[in-house]
Amino acid sequence: MSKDPTSPIGIFDSGVGGLTVARTVMERLPGESIVYFGDTARVPYGVKSADTVSRYAAEITKFLLAREVKLLIVACNTMAALALETITELSPVPVLEVIGAGAKLAMSRTRNKRLGVIATPATVQSQAYVQAIKGHDPDSFVASKACPLFVPLVEEGWLDHPVTRLVAQEYLAPLLTQNLDTIVLGCTHYPLLKPLLREVVGPDVALLDSAEAVSEAAANVLEDLGLKNPGHAPCHQFHVTDMPMRFREIGERFLGRGLDNVHLVKL
Amino acid sequence: MSKDPTSPIGIFDSGVGGLTVARTVMERLPGESIVYFGDTARVPYGVKSADTVSRYAAEITKFLLAREVKLLIVACNTMAALALETITELSPVPVLEVIGAGAKLAMSRTRNKRLGVIATPATVQSQAYVQAIKGHDPDSFVASKACPLFVPLVEEGWLDHPVTRLVAQEYLAPLLTQNLDTIVLGCTHYPLLKPLLREVVGPDVALLDSAEAVSEAAANVLEDLGLKNPGHAPCHQFHVTDMPMRFREIGERFLGRGLDNVHLVKL
Repeated sequence: MSKDPTSPIGIFDSGVGGLTVARTVMERLPGESIVYFGDTARVPYGVKSADTVSRYAAEITKFLLAREVKLLIVACNTMAALALETITELSPVPVLEVIGAGAKLAMSRTRNKRLGVIATPATVQSQAYVQAIKGHDPDSFVASKACPLFVPLVEEGWLDHPVTRLVAQEYLAPLLTQNLDTIVLGCTHYPLLKPLLREVVGPDVALLDSAEAVSEAAANVLEDLGLKNPGHAPCHQFHVTDMPMRFREIGERFLGRGLDNVHLVKL
Repeated sequence: MSKDPTSPIGIFDSGVGGLTVARTVMERLPGESIVYFGDTARVPYGVKSADTVSRYAAEITKFLLAREVKLLIVACNTMAALALETITELSPVPVLEVIGAGAKLAMSRTRNKRLGVIATPATVQSQAYVQAIKGHDPDSFVASKACPLFVPLVEEGWLDHPVTRLVAQEYLAPLLTQNLDTIVLGCTHYPLLKPLLREVVGPDVALLDSAEAVSEAAANVLEDLGLKNPGHAPCHQFHVTDMPMRFREIGERFLGRGLDNVHLVKL
């Protein structure tokens, strides 16, 4: 286990989406080095079985631990839902993940304890957000809705397009009749749709971003363990299993800045 | 090499889409046995590199050849575009694929030699259809358009939905000003959108289906080689690398009939 404050944080995802988490970690913890892993050869994980997802997650965990990370962040909701046990069993360093962090933040913000979760079909089917939220308060009400077209719409770049608005209106309609005060964006691609979703849900429903929640949790853990990097020259590395150029192109939209230092890895 | 007419035809795809090819083969050659392979653990191939696609295609080819197939049909446009050489080098039996068959059929049907191709970004970028069509007639004009949202819309089941109509209108608009008389559906998912696409393009543009083209080619090859199955009890087997239940559920929509005999394979 790395007890060295200058060690990097390991962030991993099935592809490019976890860069929204890397982005908020860079903003919240600008002094920290990051090793990012995107499994672009095998993305998406949302349509794979728990067995397959766990097998892939174990490979990535070992890869990052070999790079002496001091903290692991599971940015992929599917891996958080299906493979968390596999990852924590392998890891001697703390493991944070988007679902637990998102659920905790949502419970701290809701006033009427009526929450919504939008996510990929695999995440919704796993009931992981519902269980995490009800673990905080069994009396809370949670309505979930799978939104399978949001990821391809984001990757198409149609962030403010009539088609995306129509899709969002159709997906969110059943949530908008439930008197919810909070909706969790339970997929790393969805923060890019936040302005459009804001228009669709209106001003009275809070839209919570699991990326921000897990970054806040990371800051707290590093503070508690005395592992905050005292230096000021962080290094950001990105490892992908296929198509590094495409990762870079799409990734810059997610990261909101230039993306250098991308390496191709064969797992 | 199998010279036994009772041997099966091997059909392979990155996932479920190739079932539109299996369907037309079943209709055109009802006496033939089929071994279908869908690489559902690693789908989609359209965002992977040529190296990775070739590596996976080689694994599948060997798997099917070990099952004594008499003919191979590459139903996946991406594999046809990026890995055909790898597959033909490995195979002692004839290899047919959707791009060559689709291009040949299109050239036999067009009157004004002005054609369109709609496909996934990877297929369009490979220029494989353009090269195949121009190989028949260098003076023909080909306009291509990538339609990345069509596959997720088909998998969502929105075959006749206002969103899909709006997306189709936007994608096809640049083709409809080019005086084309023929558009090739260059992705195995697109035949399910044919009625909606027919509305969008109007009655004067032919919509050609590569699945039908490759089935016709298969019938001709078996006839020429004297390999048509004389029997009447064909066996249809399906092998997938993950999620056999999901394959079965979505697959029945593609196949237009019940889907039994699905086996899970670890490659």
